[in-house]
Order: sequence, then structure tokens, then C-alpha cells
Amino acid sequence: MRIIRGRAAGATSTLRSDTFAGTVWADPVLPVIDGTTINVVTFTPGARTDWHEHTGGQILQVLTGEGWVCAAGGPAHRLLPGDTVWVLPGERHWHGATATTVMTHTAISLGPTHWYDEVGPGGYAAAHDEESR
Amino acid sequence: MRIIRGRAAGATSTLRSDTFAGTVWADPVLPVIDGTTINVVTFTPGARTDWHEHTGGQILQVLTGEGWVCAAGGPAHRLLPGDTVWVLPGERHWHGATATTVMTHTAISLGPTHWYDEVGPGGYAAAHDEESR
Repeated sequence: MRIIRGRAAGATSTLRSDTFAGTVWADPVLPVIDGTTINVVTFTPGARTDWHEHTGGQILQVLTGEGWVCAAGGPAHRLLPGDTVWVLPGERHWHGATATTVMTHTAISLGPTHWYDEVGPGGYAAAHDEESR
Repeated sequence: MRIIRGRAAGATSTLRSDTFAGTVWADPVLPVIDGTTINVVTFTPGARTDWHEHTGGQILQVLTGEGWVCAAGGPAHRLLPGDTVWVLPGERHWHGATATTVMTHTAISLGPTHWYDEVGPGGYAAAHDEESR
């Protein structure tokens, strides 16, 4: 059993850049234990993950702001505070802020993560245009 | 991908009694998908789970009140809002409110749950007496 008071004590927040576009800060809550890790992730306007998959799935819990989540082959879905997202094991997806807002969410990631291509400017802009959200 | 706006729309909150002691309400957020389920659980004063295990582990995120979590063979640990608990896969444990407070937590349960004996009045009272919290 591991009990965390608020966040991992004394741990450094990490500026994510390799597999993200834009400015994204990850704040550690639970280090990787048994393949499970918890971070609170803050996306600044325009920032988003690259396409990726979680072997065991992922849970997002939106805390503030407004953003997007998009699974491969589907439309982007608008995210607001109070929303919970279950991303299926192995489902390729991206998530991030909108072009004009921040978004902070808790991310509970299960199993190893596999990273793919970045979400290009065109694909990201299309999220803001789609009607089927 | 499954997106939940706040909680499972229209779902009924469930009074848990078979495997809990006292009055406990579970409010559904995410129904069981891929073996993962999310509930927001409210324990009234004195209420607690029976001893149990989650095959894939469990994450507790404390929202309000004050309570206990206890793994088999160890002391009870006091829980407060903002705390996150990672319960290991197969780790036998119980959690609940203190005798004089409510506790509400989000519970993210991974894999099937196996239930065992109830936490007797003596074992529950001992949580309140221990020093090693």
C-alpha cells in the first residue's frame, strides 16, 4: 500500500517536450508502481500530447479549463471540468488544451505507454472545427 | 473511449450492505469496462468495507471527511482530503470512515474484487487507538 499526501513529496514538476507539442507541465502524484502512475498534467493553450497508447488503458479526470480528447478514426471530444475519460487498453489517442484555453487533468496511466507521431497543426485545428462533439 | 460527464447519467446511487458495515452509498461514475470501474463512495460515521482484495489493485482519492485505510498485517492509516492511496494488486485491506466522521472518496478498482470477513468492532476500534499512523 502506498499513501500519497497530495502529491509525491518533494518531487520536481516536469516540463514535457519529447512527446508533446507546446508547453505542458506534469506534476507527479504517484510514481510508477506495478505499472500504474498518476500525474496531474497542465496543458497551456495550444499544447497537446502526441498520438499514443497505454497498454492497460488510461483514466483522465478533468480539473480545470477546457480541452480535447480524440481517438484514432473518430472526432475530437470537448472536455470540461468534472469529466472522466476511460481510454481503452491499446486505443491510440491524443489529448490537450484548446487553442485558447488551459486544461489540467489528473492522468492515471495503466501499463507502458507507446508514443507515435505528433498531432499536426491541421489535425489539431480540425478539432476546433468539427461539429460532432 | 468512454467519456463521462460528471457521473453515469441517470444511474442510481447504491446502498452497499452485503460487503460493508454501516451505511455506505456508492455513486457510479464509470460502469465496469475492461475490468475497470469508478465509483464515488460515501461512508457515514462508523461505516467501512469488509476485508477485500482487487486483482489489479485500487486507487482511492479522498474528497471529503476523514477515514481509515488498513492493509492486512499493518496499522490503520488516517486519510484526509487530497490523499491518494495505491492499493497493490491482491493486497488484502479495508477502508472506511472514522467513528465520528464521514469520508467520501473516489474509488478506481482494477479487475475483479474478492471479499472476505468483516472488520469486527474490535479491529475497527483499534484503528482509532493506534499510534503508528
